[in-house]
Amino acid sequence: MRRRKHVKVITVADKAQPLQLDCGGVLPEIQVAYETYGHLSQTGDNVILVVHALTGDSHPAAHDQADDIGWWEPLVGPGCPIDTNVFYVVCSNVLGGCQGTTGPASINPETGQPYGAHFPQITIRDMVHVQKRLLDKLGIEQLVLVIGGSMGGMQALEWAVTYPDMMDGVAVIAAPGYTTPQAIAYNIVGRRAVMLDPDWQEGNYYGTAGPAEGLAIARALGMITYQSDYSMTEKFGRNLRNDKFEVENYLEYQGNSLVKRFDANAYLYLLKALDLHDLGRGYSSYQAALARVKAKVLVVGVSSDILYPPYQQQQLVRELKAAGARASYNEIDSGHGHDGFLIDFPILRPMIDRFIRSILPTPALLNHHSLFRPSDLAYLGARLVTEI
Amino acid sequence: MRRRKHVKVITVADKAQPLQLDCGGVLPEIQVAYETYGHLSQTGDNVILVVHALTGDSHPAAHDQADDIGWWEPLVGPGCPIDTNVFYVVCSNVLGGCQGTTGPASINPETGQPYGAHFPQITIRDMVHVQKRLLDKLGIEQLVLVIGGSMGGMQALEWAVTYPDMMDGVAVIAAPGYTTPQAIAYNIVGRRAVMLDPDWQEGNYYGTAGPAEGLAIARALGMITYQSDYSMTEKFGRNLRNDKFEVENYLEYQGNSLVKRFDANAYLYLLKALDLHDLGRGYSSYQAALARVKAKVLVVGVSSDILYPPYQQQQLVRELKAAGARASYNEIDSGHGHDGFLIDFPILRPMIDRFIRSILPTPALLNHHSLFRPSDLAYLGARLVTEI
Repeated sequence: MRRRKHVKVITVADKAQPLQLDCGGVLPEIQVAYETYGHLSQTGDNVILVVHALTGDSHPAAHDQADDIGWWEPLVGPGCPIDTNVFYVVCSNVLGGCQGTTGPASINPETGQPYGAHFPQITIRDMVHVQKRLLDKLGIEQLVLVIGGSMGGMQALEWAVTYPDMMDGVAVIAAPGYTTPQAIAYNIVGRRAVMLDPDWQEGNYYGTAGPAEGLAIARALGMITYQSDYSMTEKFGRNLRNDKFEVENYLEYQGNSLVKRFDANAYLYLLKALDLHDLGRGYSSYQAALARVKAKVLVVGVSSDILYPPYQQQQLVRELKAAGARASYNEIDSGHGHDGFLIDFPILRPMIDRFIRSILPTPALLNHHSLFRPSDLAYLGARLVTEI
Repeated sequence: MRRRKHVKVITVADKAQPLQLDCGGVLPEIQVAYETYGHLSQTGDNVILVVHALTGDSHPAAHDQADDIGWWEPLVGPGCPIDTNVFYVVCSNVLGGCQGTTGPASINPETGQPYGAHFPQITIRDMVHVQKRLLDKLGIEQLVLVIGGSMGGMQALEWAVTYPDMMDGVAVIAAPGYTTPQAIAYNIVGRRAVMLDPDWQEGNYYGTAGPAEGLAIARALGMITYQSDYSMTEKFGRNLRNDKFEVENYLEYQGNSLVKRFDANAYLYLLKALDLHDLGRGYSSYQAALARVKAKVLVVGVSSDILYPPYQQQQLVRELKAAGARASYNEIDSGHGHDGFLIDFPILRPMIDRFIRSILPTPALLNHHSLFRPSDLAYLGARLVTEI
């Protein structure tokens, strides 16, 4: 794939420095696949860490015109809110994933075989620890912003709690401070479907077809929760094609598409990481965890999100404020459901743009920022006016 | 089971009178399991048909103190809104079910083997046609009311459209005029889970264990859609038991419970019947179907229903009114989700009570109603006063 061209891989854990995991396991070797955009400033003060959602990867945007488009193209690039003419953007595939970073499909150095179901359970916090090691390797000590949607939003929140001194801002889109039982329940059903597939073979399916139908079913269920009754009715109604409801054709297509690009065991582990997400984990209380946050936090909800409904984001902001953090809530008023964070760019762009400018140094400081070109300043200035 | 004691079985289709099905198939033999409560009046003017939901049966209430309780106990019985001292209540297991009425587990008279996946596809309308044949056999020509929730509500609506002259009222709880793609999508996922189970064996599992895990997964998904984020959070939170989230224990319990009492093929066929539900099916338009309705219609939604959200019931009432029908909307303001129709009896009882009284003959007629006892009249009178 063309998109692989810009992917770099780096080792962040080895026998000398294994990673102790949140649930008690150990990973003796971790490789991280990542991409970077733009240029690191001399003082290292222009870094934005973009973190991806469940089935995402290290490729939020194309690197050039010949490159495949990314999953957050309208947000990341020259002249975008996450302006790669200004910022040095880092995005890595998550721990437990299957797009280059160590996960269940990786070879277990102790057995020489893929981990499969013997991969240790990982959490959102483990993903963040791995990203921290990646930044250490890259010589990055400070972040302007950590930003992500859905599972990416959970990581952004964990960043704010785990490394509170490292970033100015955190932007969390369509993600809760902890996962509620309804969202867990959907994941349980998805996992059971994968594991019911006889081709799953207790996770030892590498070299064989693998649990294609089980994973496709899990994905189909995911797709329902990412959309809304409204958006599905708009798109599919009760229309038929090939003697099937359009929605059935769609779900089959989406399921099969994921099967081609995603490892079923990785899907199982990442779903479980979503279930385990709870910022309060390991702290004396949830409130105590939130009280650690020093970054300015923007929390964005999507009005029609049925997976992590907006009341959860509103609640998170109230809880952050109660814990003394600077937090604000923006809502994407959209029928797209949870997927709004990957669709509603005309609404998301100004929200993110405004937030980034609110955490940047003052305009005076902007002027001496070596990476701001005059055109960028004019661009930012013009939009700042509209903010008044 | 004790509850079987009061179940009667009657043949409503045979070689001489097979049932032509809505989707083109034919059933050469149909038996219906049903129960009755109360006494049929001499003029046959006191019949209420109660229709059940997906996994329900012919047993909405206990017949006596020794009997098992039913699924609508607080609504059906002496002194209840569906007062068995007053009304003759009929409830039958649906066509395609597995509680005594012909379904996929029944013996195909042409092969001597269970139908399995060779059972013809059935619709909600077919269920209604079978119920009509049952009433014919029982000598019932007129209904005071047809009432049901969820799939039962769909049947009640089909009754109003298919046999518009037969009833005074129809009460529809938590059911739409047609199924929307999100609800269809959940059913698709459920069916695929059942069929993925190797023990499903293309539906030929009779005499073997059957697709227990597949059906349990489908049921688990159903249970999510019957509840709400709120009710699940209230019940389970993120509590753990036996190293599992409580919600996982709960879903496993619910799945396993259904497996013990329900046939997987019946589940597949009934889910598909839900998908095919569309009152406009076979008519020149949806509006044309609604214009056939002569009964007074009460439509009840549950505020937190995510399966058939209340806007669908509100829309149905608007559409019924636009088609010239007498329709009204009541909402159960509850966090219980779709299951509210089986839980929120303190709200549902007065709604149903009021509606039944609104469709009954005038008080003058009530007096000569042979089955009204003085105490019932006093009871009704007292409550009528509260209506003013």
